[in-house]
Amino acid sequence: MTEEDRAAYGIEGEWPVLRRHRIRWAECDMYGHVNHAAYLTLCEDLRVAHWLSLGGGFAPDAPGPVVAQLEARYLRPLGFDDAVALTLRPGSVRRTSYTHDYAVWKGGLVFSGKAVLVVVRNDTGERVPVPPEARRMLVAQGAKDEA
Amino acid sequence: MTEEDRAAYGIEGEWPVLRRHRIRWAECDMYGHVNHAAYLTLCEDLRVAHWLSLGGGFAPDAPGPVVAQLEARYLRPLGFDDAVALTLRPGSVRRTSYTHDYAVWKGGLVFSGKAVLVVVRNDTGERVPVPPEARRMLVAQGAKDEA
Amino acid sequence: MTEEDRAAYGIEGEWPVLRRHRIRWAECDMYGHVNHAAYLTLCEDLRVAHWLSLGGGFAPDAPGPVVAQLEARYLRPLGFDDAVALTLRPGSVRRTSYTHDYAVWKGGLVFSGKAVLVVVRNDTGERVPVPPEARRMLVAQGAKDEA
Amino acid sequence: MTEEDRAAYGIEGEWPVLRRHRIRWAECDMYGHVNHAAYLTLCEDLRVAHWLSLGGGFAPDAPGPVVAQLEARYLRPLGFDDAVALTLRPGSVRRTSYTHDYAVWKGGLVFSGKAVLVVVRNDTGERVPVPPEARRMLVAQGAKDEA
Repeated sequence: MTEEDRAAYGIEGEWPVLRRHRIRWAECDMYGHVNHAAYLTLCEDLRVAHWLSLGGGFAPDAPGPVVAQLEARYLRPLGFDDAVALTLRPGSVRRTSYTHDYAVWKGGLVFSGKAVLVVVRNDTGERVPVPPEARRMLVAQGAKDEA
Repeated sequence: MTEEDRAAYGIEGEWPVLRRHRIRWAECDMYGHVNHAAYLTLCEDLRVAHWLSLGGGFAPDAPGPVVAQLEARYLRPLGFDDAVALTLRPGSVRRTSYTHDYAVWKGGLVFSGKAVLVVVRNDTGERVPVPPEARRMLVAQGAKDEA
Repeated sequence: MTEEDRAAYGIEGEWPVLRRHRIRWAECDMYGHVNHAAYLTLCEDLRVAHWLSLGGGFAPDAPGPVVAQLEARYLRPLGFDDAVALTLRPGSVRRTSYTHDYAVWKGGLVFSGKAVLVVVRNDTGERVPVPPEARRMLVAQGAKDEA
Repeated sequence: MTEEDRAAYGIEGEWPVLRRHRIRWAECDMYGHVNHAAYLTLCEDLRVAHWLSLGGGFAPDAPGPVVAQLEARYLRPLGFDDAVALTLRPGSVRRTSYTHDYAVWKGGLVFSGKAVLVVVRNDTGERVPVPPEARRMLVAQGAKDEA
């Protein structure tokens, strides 16, 4: 994240992950605004790319993050073709879970979200520990280790 | 909600709105489970039908509910073709906002959610009071009047 | 399909499968109309339910239909909360494929579609013959056997 | 479109519009493949950006393209995180309509589609002529003028 990004989108605080996005027709509803669920799918994009960046995968027998809890605040509406920045930072990491903060920016904060993610093997459903290398990278990105 | 519904889906507590649903192919993701955002769109279905049932509408110059805050807890996964019950109850009503509790049931609670809804005129974006008749019905459905 | 259904939705022709549907908020776009892709997901709902009704399944090692070709005609727009009828009929069945005709009705024909479906084992990707019992039922529903 | 793009994705023929895309989690279904409708929403992204590039808009009282007919061929499946190229070219332009060809490429052609688009004023629903400047640009991009 450069100073230009900060200025262009009004981004505040530290965010190790940033992605630029232009609002799609399919993300807007009858009110001409981005549908509330579309924000969460944009957060999902960040989440899965982030997991890949931590060395994770999504094979049935590989550990992967599953959303256990979600919080979202919708501060100002967005419209079709708006240019926005999406940001992610890990918040904390426990033995088998970690958290993400998400934000959407356009002239300042537009949306903020938080997810609690549990690491499971999808084929068995069992919770598994956050892999050590992923944990190390989460902490390097600012996550508090609460294990 | 009949006693048979309670037994069939493991529903607990009082819910003035109930809808039966069968999980769609399009709601499932690569993990073979309902995607986290699909639950929220199912809640949206309840929300907009509920607003209509309160005498509300969705014309640009009519007051309508907009999601300001959202919380969700994903307790157990759901799969394709699962038969579930979706329930809604209003929680509280203030001057220009009200809240909804949502739940999804299949052999007990699978998902719970909560939304803070602000009533706005979509064409101007201004907050407007919850219409008196809607307020009366919300309270009759169990909402606490906090105006 | 009863005569009442025919009259209520303006349905013409023979359709072995009928489903009533009310247009969802999430299916409408900024123009206030049902998005073109939402029709196809409604057709998908019919398609997968139909496959189950033929004795089929969707396990990775079971034969299942995959869309190979699609055609759609959008005749008149639909809006939020419209009550519509969705109909399906099989058109023809070959050795490893079959076709579906779809239609959406509201005061007459609103949308028509056609799909060519190839039966594959999802885990290997190989085309497999339409199972004999499914073929028998397709023909009983009016499909021409072109195998 | 550079020669590198052609080689990287196996693109054949002339396409005035190209967009790179990475398959999203939300675009994949239980079979681990991109859902058939997701391709059409990717085509929609190209279509609306293309209309903007022709000087068009999407205000209620502005002429805008509406899908009247659609054809699609699904040649090979795509999976999560696949890097693909999306291409668009106009095919022909009549008085109040024009056509688009779409393709998705990954090691050659994966998907091809075609749409007939009618230009309408959304607020009245009436068909209006393709604006002269848009027509000129469509022809410059290779569309046959059949008006």
